[in-house]
Amino acid sequence: MSEEKESKQIVTVIGGGSWATAIVKILSEQPVKIQWWLRHKEDVQYVKKYSHNPKYLRDVQLNLRKVKACNNINEALEGSQFVVFAVPAAFVRPILKEILPENLKNRIVVSAIKGIMPDENQLITDVVEKEFNVNPKNICLIAGPCHAEEVAMEKQSYLTIGCNDLKMGEKFASLLNCRYVKTSVTDDIYGIEYSAIMKNIVAIASGIAHGLGYGDNFQAVLISNALQEIERFIQTAFPLNRNINKSAYAGDLLVTAYSQFSRNRTFGNMIGRGYSVKSAQVEMNMIAEGYYAVKSLHEINKKYKVELPICKAVYHVLYEKISPAVEIQILRDIMR
Amino acid sequence: MSEEKESKQIVTVIGGGSWATAIVKILSEQPVKIQWWLRHKEDVQYVKKYSHNPKYLRDVQLNLRKVKACNNINEALEGSQFVVFAVPAAFVRPILKEILPENLKNRIVVSAIKGIMPDENQLITDVVEKEFNVNPKNICLIAGPCHAEEVAMEKQSYLTIGCNDLKMGEKFASLLNCRYVKTSVTDDIYGIEYSAIMKNIVAIASGIAHGLGYGDNFQAVLISNALQEIERFIQTAFPLNRNINKSAYAGDLLVTAYSQFSRNRTFGNMIGRGYSVKSAQVEMNMIAEGYYAVKSLHEINKKYKVELPICKAVYHVLYEKISPAVEIQILRDIMR
Repeated sequence: MSEEKESKQIVTVIGGGSWATAIVKILSEQPVKIQWWLRHKEDVQYVKKYSHNPKYLRDVQLNLRKVKACNNINEALEGSQFVVFAVPAAFVRPILKEILPENLKNRIVVSAIKGIMPDENQLITDVVEKEFNVNPKNICLIAGPCHAEEVAMEKQSYLTIGCNDLKMGEKFASLLNCRYVKTSVTDDIYGIEYSAIMKNIVAIASGIAHGLGYGDNFQAVLISNALQEIERFIQTAFPLNRNINKSAYAGDLLVTAYSQFSRNRTFGNMIGRGYSVKSAQVEMNMIAEGYYAVKSLHEINKKYKVELPICKAVYHVLYEKISPAVEIQILRDIMR
Repeated sequence: MSEEKESKQIVTVIGGGSWATAIVKILSEQPVKIQWWLRHKEDVQYVKKYSHNPKYLRDVQLNLRKVKACNNINEALEGSQFVVFAVPAAFVRPILKEILPENLKNRIVVSAIKGIMPDENQLITDVVEKEFNVNPKNICLIAGPCHAEEVAMEKQSYLTIGCNDLKMGEKFASLLNCRYVKTSVTDDIYGIEYSAIMKNIVAIASGIAHGLGYGDNFQAVLISNALQEIERFIQTAFPLNRNINKSAYAGDLLVTAYSQFSRNRTFGNMIGRGYSVKSAQVEMNMIAEGYYAVKSLHEINKKYKVELPICKAVYHVLYEKISPAVEIQILRDIMR
């Protein structure tokens, strides 16, 4: 009876990438219905026919009794209580344009995006809140450390749900709790969001250093300095009594900066090895969120004026064509 | 003239392992004389003949105009201003027994050892201070993050020198500063010492988890929790306004827990894959300091009663024969 009642819960997941696919998989462990929006009709048909995403995490077997794929966004939003955005930040604006305002009304809107809207320098959660009149209490954020690829393999992972309203956060968190995912909840939504954004930039720096031949000793010092840099920024921008070494902050940074799966680190590595920004992007065929994030953060930090030497180095390399070797050398000399 | 004056400085380095060899290499960049003690006569003869350590960091070419190897410890101590101990903690006691008390008098004693004297539960620095009447102001500690193997390759590395007397710390630090090593100085000698000791234990836990098949997501959460665990312990035992994310603490933990060179991690990995403690030790033919450290810390913590779930798990696996899978599962369930 209780299961039947719960099973009426409907979650919309927006996005066809690896993180969206992982979230669909995690949610499928619960007695919920998932309305999954993918942009391309062919992908929707493929999912319906083969129970797999044709492009990302192709090994993941989807449970079609629970998952309904479609490529009409307003159809995907019909009757749902939760809406999870899991697309690259750069794709949010065009998607929002397609959504009828009433279709986000009274929904709990969850951002699984770690990025800033390019050229707008706004967080996705802020845009949704303002433009769709969503109550800030109804906005949640999913923070790592969690590589989608390991979720696919059902390796033990941890997620932190940020929400101004802790009860609401717990409500959504309970949908993600399963045999291989443990969740916790925080109301430091800005702190975990900016930390998640900055860690992508740090991962690029980490990749650049690796590509230039720097070793593990250097990497460890870089990450120590990055933890201090992230703390410095979020404590200035959003002062709060927080422990930066909790897994939503430090763990998320570590998994991204040290992992083979990190596309930001891979992107940085190619830059360090001498690829141009453009050719690294073409070669990867994936979007490294940090590439956009560093530009936005550079703008946002004009207000706060926090010392961010690592982010500055990445900004210089990606946007001002300064040599990676020169920028890492500057970092090398100021770090301790 | 100034070089000639400086060149009268004599540093004794005690130990023939990879870290001792790396320190001899770093010191050789300065205008000093190094009197290097190695236990075995054959090794001394090999060094003199071939300018290489026959057993560790064999690629490192030693500058024999500066380095004088010998296997008589009191001869190695003759006329030196600095004495660097770089042997496994378990070997300190027998070495100290051979040293004539006057030979440590008025010396600056530097510990490059990250461990606790087995069965005594004392730090090496404390033993030297008490038993040889060395002024605490004349005791320094070298803290990582620094793999000897990367020093051998002249990869950019960072060292932190701990000393109650910052001026004295800087004096020794200046001998380690060179083209590929940057140093900083702290008076938090206990903090960096215990942090360095605990990171070896964490690296064992990290290796065990890896050996059991846990992935990067889990590892990142483990290390985040470890940072909090180390901070909890040193803040309780030695309260101070310190930033645990500085490289002497966090960086040292990262390089050890994430690096392929870490013998503690390798040891843990073998345990996780099913080796017995004894067979892992025999197979590795190297001492994983964390093995002894966890036992001492377990004793020391009886006084402080700090919650140390990661250290407890490693203690249980190594000393109470509890299955690694069970202990990591307990950690898995309490971590967030």
